[in-house]
Amino acid sequence: MSHARFAPVTDSIVRELRSICGDANVIFGDASRLARYSRDQVPEKHSHVPPEAVVMPGAAAEVQAVMRLANRELIPVTPRGAGSGLSGGAIPVFGGICLSMERMNRILEVDTANLVAVVEPGVVTNKLDETLKPLGLFFAGYPMSEEICTLGGNVAHNAGGGRAVKYGVTRRYITGLDVVTPSGELLTLGGKRFKDVTGYDLVGLMVGSEGTLGVVTRIIIRLLPRPRYRRSLLVLFDGVRPAIETVPEIVIGGRMVPASIEFMDRISFQEACRSLKESLPWERAGAAMLLESDGSHEAQVAEEAAMMESVCRARGPLDVFTADSEVDSARFWKIRKQIPWTLKALSTHSSIEDIVVPVGEIPAIVEKIQGLEKEYAVRVPVFGHAGDGNLHAHPLKDPLSTEAAWYELIPRLLTDLYTATAALGGTISGEHGIGSKRRQFLPLVMGAGQIDLLRRIKQAFDPNGILNPGKIFD
Amino acid sequence: MSHARFAPVTDSIVRELRSICGDANVIFGDASRLARYSRDQVPEKHSHVPPEAVVMPGAAAEVQAVMRLANRELIPVTPRGAGSGLSGGAIPVFGGICLSMERMNRILEVDTANLVAVVEPGVVTNKLDETLKPLGLFFAGYPMSEEICTLGGNVAHNAGGGRAVKYGVTRRYITGLDVVTPSGELLTLGGKRFKDVTGYDLVGLMVGSEGTLGVVTRIIIRLLPRPRYRRSLLVLFDGVRPAIETVPEIVIGGRMVPASIEFMDRISFQEACRSLKESLPWERAGAAMLLESDGSHEAQVAEEAAMMESVCRARGPLDVFTADSEVDSARFWKIRKQIPWTLKALSTHSSIEDIVVPVGEIPAIVEKIQGLEKEYAVRVPVFGHAGDGNLHAHPLKDPLSTEAAWYELIPRLLTDLYTATAALGGTISGEHGIGSKRRQFLPLVMGAGQIDLLRRIKQAFDPNGILNPGKIFD
Repeated sequence: MSHARFAPVTDSIVRELRSICGDANVIFGDASRLARYSRDQVPEKHSHVPPEAVVMPGAAAEVQAVMRLANRELIPVTPRGAGSGLSGGAIPVFGGICLSMERMNRILEVDTANLVAVVEPGVVTNKLDETLKPLGLFFAGYPMSEEICTLGGNVAHNAGGGRAVKYGVTRRYITGLDVVTPSGELLTLGGKRFKDVTGYDLVGLMVGSEGTLGVVTRIIIRLLPRPRYRRSLLVLFDGVRPAIETVPEIVIGGRMVPASIEFMDRISFQEACRSLKESLPWERAGAAMLLESDGSHEAQVAEEAAMMESVCRARGPLDVFTADSEVDSARFWKIRKQIPWTLKALSTHSSIEDIVVPVGEIPAIVEKIQGLEKEYAVRVPVFGHAGDGNLHAHPLKDPLSTEAAWYELIPRLLTDLYTATAALGGTISGEHGIGSKRRQFLPLVMGAGQIDLLRRIKQAFDPNGILNPGKIFD
Repeated sequence: MSHARFAPVTDSIVRELRSICGDANVIFGDASRLARYSRDQVPEKHSHVPPEAVVMPGAAAEVQAVMRLANRELIPVTPRGAGSGLSGGAIPVFGGICLSMERMNRILEVDTANLVAVVEPGVVTNKLDETLKPLGLFFAGYPMSEEICTLGGNVAHNAGGGRAVKYGVTRRYITGLDVVTPSGELLTLGGKRFKDVTGYDLVGLMVGSEGTLGVVTRIIIRLLPRPRYRRSLLVLFDGVRPAIETVPEIVIGGRMVPASIEFMDRISFQEACRSLKESLPWERAGAAMLLESDGSHEAQVAEEAAMMESVCRARGPLDVFTADSEVDSARFWKIRKQIPWTLKALSTHSSIEDIVVPVGEIPAIVEKIQGLEKEYAVRVPVFGHAGDGNLHAHPLKDPLSTEAAWYELIPRLLTDLYTATAALGGTISGEHGIGSKRRQFLPLVMGAGQIDLLRRIKQAFDPNGILNPGKIFD
């Protein structure tokens, strides 16, 4: 696929790319290999677009050379991590070059004297965690997909995870970045220091910019002491309301900041348990909460867990299961992590949403989603990071309806969902990003003046608009 | 003062300003009143410049009207909070209009259901704290000057304070901003939600932009539960080395995150104690550490304090004083907060520096500063937020030397200090900002490509360059 604004990837361009990165690190003309780079984890198959070429650089200098070439020839470049994104951010919507960071996957340094790790963007998040574990340290901003996602992708999307209530998300921990600009210049932003007000916060701006402002080639991550104690609760309720109403009670009434406050509605929880052949008595649960406290002090962890348990017990739960060890708590998290995979498998078509509202509005948005289920006669399971106000609603196509009917219905349903979210002071993505998936909906939550400002910032970094075009805004 | 790029403030402009903000809220032609707006807390008197007019808007719509007028007429506008800044950020270096936010000083809302406060920029930081205290909440990013500084200034400089080791600085807590652009448009950025990846992080970019990208008219601040317990240690050492070497031992070896790790060298500590008529045995102290743990759990606070005490005791301190109550700990903090005022009063000329290094390099930079003291034969007391790697070195003019000699010496000394800081992976400001004071030194720590990018971002917001010109970069 090519586009009037951009030039195609020709044989002569491919020769240049091969001379930069080596023959083995350029894919061209092989449709089945290229197809693997046409998608991320967004389930909408009609959004997939293969790149014209895939280039796998091994070092920042190679990224620079590729960007200089692409900028000169006006070829679109789409950076790619693990392809585990949920907004179409790594889909090369205008074809061109897919810049896959898979070979730049080294942990360069764990600097225990300054409490930072220095990594390449292609490092799988869990690999860093495995390295840090014996040192008693961790990167606290990691997302739920840590077994597959890469740190470069975490940075691109400002990924958040199951512990953001207490620890915040990726941006909080990124103290330095090496970035190749669209014109091929290598910038060293920030460093190993924890405070810095020298000029505008370019490190923070790069984090969450979805690969549209520069290509990250090195990441410096602030590390925290790994919590020594952990206590997890899995609490089953007979319905959504008593479960979700615990959220503001814990966050606001409890006056403590636990690590995790995860919500799972009936379909999410039951289907995940069913697919895992879970032996817990999940069949009668109308909703479940996964609550966790962690820290370096046993008494603090116990006190927080007791507070959460007492809030839950006041709501008449069906069952309360507790876990004090990593092993037991892993069982609870396995259920929670299974949900998106199970839901995707329930239907040929679905949409993984990522709305966020002020935390006190969590019960209101869940009620709204239940209303949309009835209005559109589709199932919309809901789960996610309720303690942050961040919920994954997951509309599923009715197996009896046609594909055409689904594609007619889903933009209307999303428009209603997003409009309701905005009315509660929320927005359309808390951690997945806008990408190509939500681009058309941005004006629902952002005024023309602000979108125009985003465009002017993009222009400041990328005058030719070659880096990851077709993302965030039109 | 006026400048070729800009137009002067004429009588007809003043009439327009008065019709926007009311006669009483515009100062013009009154040199002594204008002089009060010529400076911030930077001691360098030669940097002071009065504005041609001061305008005190009462609402965002008035700020918009002033900006539209200034943008049309090419009149420079310098926003101003309390004037407590330490980088010359509020100095109207090209004259023009000082936009003083002093009348926009209302706490609009404390939303306990969503754990945020909504304030105008002119609210004094401590006033918010007084309001939050009975609610058991607090804004954790506040700086040391909380009795005088305003929240708008905190946002402009991404201010940090004595608890940043644990709580981070201002940016972490700002979830939403209303901003008037240089062309007079009102943008509502972010909101009461705690997660948001909808487009580039404009809230984060505005924080720390030193009033050069827009005028903040409303701030939404995330609140945390106020810690119920606190334990403070004031530890006196006979010299700098044993004191400063506790810092990496606590931060790295201790595997805990205490609230405060403050360092004071001999001159800083002794002179502050002397000026306060402190009865503690300060005369023999060669250095002091103020260490504090806080939290919602008594056992955790006690355990952290015990760890810090044990690290200190292993270094053979002269004295260890502990405090468990707000009242006692206030006595320790009073000494720490007194330091910059005392040092400024010690000499007719001084320079308040704000370098930051990776936390493991704290002993190395202190040693470097001691070398500079000898090399330049000036006293350079050092104190500050050692646990963040952020130190305030404070070169003092020798009373026997001339003013001319000082102005010849200080840029050379700062160049050496900044170069040494950069060589250790640090930078020239951790929390005070670049402003007009450090602008000329920016190329010591930032490449031309990155400075050019800052300029292009500035251009994206402020094509005519009228908002706070002469700050950060040339």
